[in-house]
Amino acid sequence: MREYPAPIQTLVALLERLPGVGPKTALRYVFFLLKEAKTTVPALVTALQSLEQALRPCRLCRTYTTDELCDVCRDPRRDPSTLCVVADARDVGTIGAAGFQGRFHVLGGTISPLEGMGPDALELHTLTARLQEDRSIHEVILAFNPDPDGETTMLYLSRLLHAFPVKVSRLARGLPVGADLEFADEATLGDAIKRRWEV
Amino acid sequence: MREYPAPIQTLVALLERLPGVGPKTALRYVFFLLKEAKTTVPALVTALQSLEQALRPCRLCRTYTTDELCDVCRDPRRDPSTLCVVADARDVGTIGAAGFQGRFHVLGGTISPLEGMGPDALELHTLTARLQEDRSIHEVILAFNPDPDGETTMLYLSRLLHAFPVKVSRLARGLPVGADLEFADEATLGDAIKRRWEV
Repeated sequence: MREYPAPIQTLVALLERLPGVGPKTALRYVFFLLKEAKTTVPALVTALQSLEQALRPCRLCRTYTTDELCDVCRDPRRDPSTLCVVADARDVGTIGAAGFQGRFHVLGGTISPLEGMGPDALELHTLTARLQEDRSIHEVILAFNPDPDGETTMLYLSRLLHAFPVKVSRLARGLPVGADLEFADEATLGDAIKRRWEV
Repeated sequence: MREYPAPIQTLVALLERLPGVGPKTALRYVFFLLKEAKTTVPALVTALQSLEQALRPCRLCRTYTTDELCDVCRDPRRDPSTLCVVADARDVGTIGAAGFQGRFHVLGGTISPLEGMGPDALELHTLTARLQEDRSIHEVILAFNPDPDGETTMLYLSRLLHAFPVKVSRLARGLPVGADLEFADEATLGDAIKRRWEV
């Protein structure tokens, strides 16, 4: 890196903060941007600046939106009886793309004792307030990653939501498409056997 | 992508222009940046803006620099007799890191008939002017990728540089560290046999 001037090194150091980006990839991005100095770079600057100015949390579900309510919360065709609770705003798109037709609630993270994230840091008050006000919600789906933090959060939420007259569910565990039985872990395969479907 | 508000989609579309970045990676970057809206994003905006303002081509070698001459061209300890011609400014760092002690000349690309890049688009006038003025240059190393465009450019340059009293060389072809003989192509292995070293 000694050979590159300071403005390049500064940008490389910042781009290295992006998830999964190391020094070589960051440098590749910088040299691409240098060639696009008149086109992509000004557009990128504007887009980055408008990111914080234009976006705020949806009043109901806490996902990012440009208005008071997000597209999903405003859409009257959405099923109001099913609420899917997710860790991050990016999960809204992932689960929406899989065909889910209900509404969402974004917690803003998971309970993570190792990272010092307790329940207070999450959007739990907005969730319980929503369940108290909106009596059309009949089911809450906990859609978290099946990892230790996700499991802890789902356990905490399932206890918290016992106080409400709603069904609480979680995503099924089983073999993903294209999986190989030989490499499936025992917990996954055990659940796949126990919850087998009739065909 | 339907579920995300416009500022997110705009930034995703711009980040997708980066080399090797698809929609999922771009979205991952955007959600990282959303969490870093107060820290990384303003720093990134400043770094991107200063990229074009602070950098210009070195008067001699045409690499990016903040001054009239780049660090390499200014360094009196560099060997003035060996000039390494490369396609892009990023190659300066790669070849410098491999221990090359001479100076560089950045062509700004390769001759690519398929992409409509002819010799006129390259820094050839600055190269020939440099060879005419600086009589201390004894050898020109052509350090291009051994792909069709790189080979075309090296062939063109070797003919162009015949008019000057310099030795013209190219990087050796052979087996890279960690290679497997079984998977080496015939041209590489043929050259590795022909140019074998005595040990």
